[in-house]
Amino acid sequence: MDKVQEWNELAAQFAVDSIRASTEAGSGHPTSSMSAAHLVAVLYADHLRYDVSDPKNPANDRFVLSKGHASPLMYSILKAIGAITDEQLLSFRRFGSPLEGHPVPVPEMPWIDVATGSLGQGLPIGLGMALAMKMDESPARVWVLTGDSEAAEGSVWEAMANAWFHGAGNLIALLDMNRLGQRGPTMVEWQGEVYAERARAFGWHAIQVDGHDVSAIDAAYREAEEAEAGRPVMIVARTEKGHGVSFLANKEGWHGKALSREEAEKAIAELGGPRNIAITPPKPELRIPQAPKPWTYQVPTYDDAIATRKAFGETLAAMAVNPGLVVLDGEVGNSTHTEDFQKVAPDRFLEMYIAEQCMVGAAVGLQVLGKTPFAATFGAFMTRAFDFIRMAAVSRANLRLSGSHAGVSIGEDGPSQMALEDLAMMRAVHGSTVLYPADGNSAARLTAAMADLPGISYIRTTREATAKLYDEGERFPIGGSKVLRSSDGDRATIVGAGVTVYEALKAAEELAGEGTAVRVIDAYSVKPIDAATLAGALRETGLVVVVEDHWVDGGLGDAVLQALAGEGELSGRVLKLAVTEMPGSGKPEELRDWAGISGPKIAGAIRRGLA
Amino acid sequence: MDKVQEWNELAAQFAVDSIRASTEAGSGHPTSSMSAAHLVAVLYADHLRYDVSDPKNPANDRFVLSKGHASPLMYSILKAIGAITDEQLLSFRRFGSPLEGHPVPVPEMPWIDVATGSLGQGLPIGLGMALAMKMDESPARVWVLTGDSEAAEGSVWEAMANAWFHGAGNLIALLDMNRLGQRGPTMVEWQGEVYAERARAFGWHAIQVDGHDVSAIDAAYREAEEAEAGRPVMIVARTEKGHGVSFLANKEGWHGKALSREEAEKAIAELGGPRNIAITPPKPELRIPQAPKPWTYQVPTYDDAIATRKAFGETLAAMAVNPGLVVLDGEVGNSTHTEDFQKVAPDRFLEMYIAEQCMVGAAVGLQVLGKTPFAATFGAFMTRAFDFIRMAAVSRANLRLSGSHAGVSIGEDGPSQMALEDLAMMRAVHGSTVLYPADGNSAARLTAAMADLPGISYIRTTREATAKLYDEGERFPIGGSKVLRSSDGDRATIVGAGVTVYEALKAAEELAGEGTAVRVIDAYSVKPIDAATLAGALRETGLVVVVEDHWVDGGLGDAVLQALAGEGELSGRVLKLAVTEMPGSGKPEELRDWAGISGPKIAGAIRRGLA
Repeated sequence: MDKVQEWNELAAQFAVDSIRASTEAGSGHPTSSMSAAHLVAVLYADHLRYDVSDPKNPANDRFVLSKGHASPLMYSILKAIGAITDEQLLSFRRFGSPLEGHPVPVPEMPWIDVATGSLGQGLPIGLGMALAMKMDESPARVWVLTGDSEAAEGSVWEAMANAWFHGAGNLIALLDMNRLGQRGPTMVEWQGEVYAERARAFGWHAIQVDGHDVSAIDAAYREAEEAEAGRPVMIVARTEKGHGVSFLANKEGWHGKALSREEAEKAIAELGGPRNIAITPPKPELRIPQAPKPWTYQVPTYDDAIATRKAFGETLAAMAVNPGLVVLDGEVGNSTHTEDFQKVAPDRFLEMYIAEQCMVGAAVGLQVLGKTPFAATFGAFMTRAFDFIRMAAVSRANLRLSGSHAGVSIGEDGPSQMALEDLAMMRAVHGSTVLYPADGNSAARLTAAMADLPGISYIRTTREATAKLYDEGERFPIGGSKVLRSSDGDRATIVGAGVTVYEALKAAEELAGEGTAVRVIDAYSVKPIDAATLAGALRETGLVVVVEDHWVDGGLGDAVLQALAGEGELSGRVLKLAVTEMPGSGKPEELRDWAGISGPKIAGAIRRGLA
Repeated sequence: MDKVQEWNELAAQFAVDSIRASTEAGSGHPTSSMSAAHLVAVLYADHLRYDVSDPKNPANDRFVLSKGHASPLMYSILKAIGAITDEQLLSFRRFGSPLEGHPVPVPEMPWIDVATGSLGQGLPIGLGMALAMKMDESPARVWVLTGDSEAAEGSVWEAMANAWFHGAGNLIALLDMNRLGQRGPTMVEWQGEVYAERARAFGWHAIQVDGHDVSAIDAAYREAEEAEAGRPVMIVARTEKGHGVSFLANKEGWHGKALSREEAEKAIAELGGPRNIAITPPKPELRIPQAPKPWTYQVPTYDDAIATRKAFGETLAAMAVNPGLVVLDGEVGNSTHTEDFQKVAPDRFLEMYIAEQCMVGAAVGLQVLGKTPFAATFGAFMTRAFDFIRMAAVSRANLRLSGSHAGVSIGEDGPSQMALEDLAMMRAVHGSTVLYPADGNSAARLTAAMADLPGISYIRTTREATAKLYDEGERFPIGGSKVLRSSDGDRATIVGAGVTVYEALKAAEELAGEGTAVRVIDAYSVKPIDAATLAGALRETGLVVVVEDHWVDGGLGDAVLQALAGEGELSGRVLKLAVTEMPGSGKPEELRDWAGISGPKIAGAIRRGLA
């Protein structure tokens, strides 16, 4: 059997198995799988260098199914390469099966690197993988299969621009131009030249090909593999949704629909019946040495006032001895202070420009290849990447994020630059850790701790310099808090974090002058939060006042209430002081007072609360 | 004085005033203002058709300062056109001044249509304005001044593609290519041909121009005004940051820095000193008639089970008699059921494809021109637009959003498609209204109510059909709730919303069979929430169990706790039942049970709570 016949047989098997799996499940996307069957048949049979028995080998080429709804195709590939059995294939979409509706890197699925299914994410993630390979001087490549509908997502073009700028010649995008989106024709339909011209305008090498002609596909892959060094390649493949079956091919109304058993039988017959071809992809050339070098570093310490964002940056710089540490910037590195890392490790500093989605997506890709990425921008602009952060949690990614310029305390720049919803956003990320240090020493310790944290962690930093609160020897366990003032006679507790800790201390001082003792807690760990200490404070003082430089919904106040409710019977009062009206410009202290979160305003609230 | 001299003098005044305002403030972005001074001088003096005394006139051309940090330039324009005084100009960035650090449409600033400052938003917003003008058959145009750094934002390319597709020939983008971003050179620097080629590849007419040559600018504007019908135009203007001042022009290190008084004096002298030129832009040709036509419609009612997403779509269709209603889709209209509106009002249905940021941005632009936009996608994918939603609140926009496919209840598609953080996200939007109806009749009523709501409103809908709960005559006030079961002997209260209301009823039924009376509340209005009813339930039953198909953080449970805390002394227990582990695929009922939010699991939690 010659190559062409082999590839075509394999593609037919993928189409058949995609139909079988989705019909068995009663849902799924067989037609979106069928359009790309020839593309992946040629890829897995003869181009992707991949050790099936060692899927985490960093020398492997990587395949990212950006069009995650074509999961039946992915699982059909896994069957053909011997990763899963036919029986497992038919467990698709069942409760408890690792073959979920969209691919997810659960432990049983080591051949899946990242979760997809929110469109437009595969290319930014693939770019991160490609950049990790470049850092490791690996000859491996990243192949990303994207749909045509998802070309409408801006994140795709963020990745296109950045891939060109960063010279990611090891990144190959396969655009499965099947013309039909979920609800009808795509914007560009079969105008392959439009995609090709756009790719060229973004600095890519573009190739147009008939996506069902296996010889042409093979030639395109060879051209891509031999393309100019440093130039990413897009292959625009004209395909048909549901290709190979008369009543499905290029027909509207078949998106995301499983075939009935009768329809499936007919379709499978048209495709020549089931097959059981096993293939072995080409092996990677070598195993990239990943010998962990031992390293040590000193966490910076501070005696003078310093902005927590600056302490964050200096700690990254100190940690640069860790060869796996990579820092990504959204073109604000002189504000977030990631530039301090850039100065000492320019080769592991990735300027992603003002493209927050691509920044976070690339970070997900980097950690797949074993890197320890930190990504930073203004906390306000981290909202731009919420869908990527959400999906990173589905990807079981270990990701470290920093949002600077928290709250009204940024001052004159006004509300567009103020992070006022970032705590709510990050609390709502599955398995996240949310940190908000007040001073330089706590910021440095918490930044250092993030390097080893699993899951998505987030550190919120402040624009202004803040005074030293903690000695250099102080430790800040995740889930802990610091009780800064306390006495047996406390009549209320103020819970702050970050900049409001200082306002809380001012209020306590003011009230102490009037003979009212007040406890002050620094809740530097917003999630997980120190529920026991908070519950004790409510029990002992009867009034807890939570003060935050954030909208009143979803932030520290809600975290405190949730913690208190989780500790059993509620008894006492909890007041939330937070930003409730739209701020304008002004000095930080003016705005905090206006928002009711300044020391005097907190003291006033407590006075009223105790009256 | 000839035109060239006039324009140059005006540009010099803009540069001088930008320096004066920012030096007086002690912060701001004078150099980013100076690069665009000539572009806007020619625009406001001779091209923008704009009635300064009637800024809301829909026949006006619109100017959007996408590079919002160049706010000193914007305020310098307002001074020149007589909208504000020089004294007001010098109040820039002061507490209480409407001249905020980034432009904001506060009531005192009717010449500002939308808030900018989060980059990459001006073009999607401008597209919405342009599409509104097209709907009204207005000859007006939209001019968007964008920075070059922000070309890295994917949202720009979403708008580029959609503007081409929708034939927005009345949209003109001015790309101020000043080469320098916040922290150094931009990705593309002065390679104007790169921007022009990208624009052409996206179907735009592109013009390159020297952005400090007023005659060339005037010619480019004329070319843009006379360009092919239906083709949007990008003018790539090569400029210098800090142009006109020897020690600022094209120099790094001057981003976002005000000049000292000494530096300012020197710079102003180089620019020829202060001027006080007043200009009157050309008047618009006419006033677009916006006579409100009276209309009436029947809110749909349902006797049988129906998915709330379907009731949402059918209500939009019923409301299509409102000529201002516009519906935007993220290429999932057959899932969110906005397609029902499309069927009856195709001219006011905007398919924005899979470009959620552009969808929301365009909705903001549409409402500036008096439209009543509804935008819908899966709730999970609404996270893609969080930054746009956040900024829409800063824009004081009236926006209606719908997120379908809430929670694990979507079933087999898996976590990438499940909205599990949308309530947290939408609660954290300033001034938002968050609605989550359980049945078809409540969904229809609440959808209808959204048309008249100010601010950002959000309706969360369910994939599955749900049984009728309410009669057609029932009313659902915003901020209300429905007590579905209640007795004097209630020993606990279950608070649900959407799909969990049914699970709550099942649990109450099960417990009633054991002799335990339980109250059930449908909290269809998540924000504002019915605090009084919830507080009464805690007081009377002592145990409140909140059940939601959402992550445990930031959603209904937090909203309930916040409401209870706001009502005074807390006494009793509040349990939160929500999704706490990463779901996979499965049947809706399997997944609800797995998550612990099914009727039996709720009943079990209450049994344990009462034991």
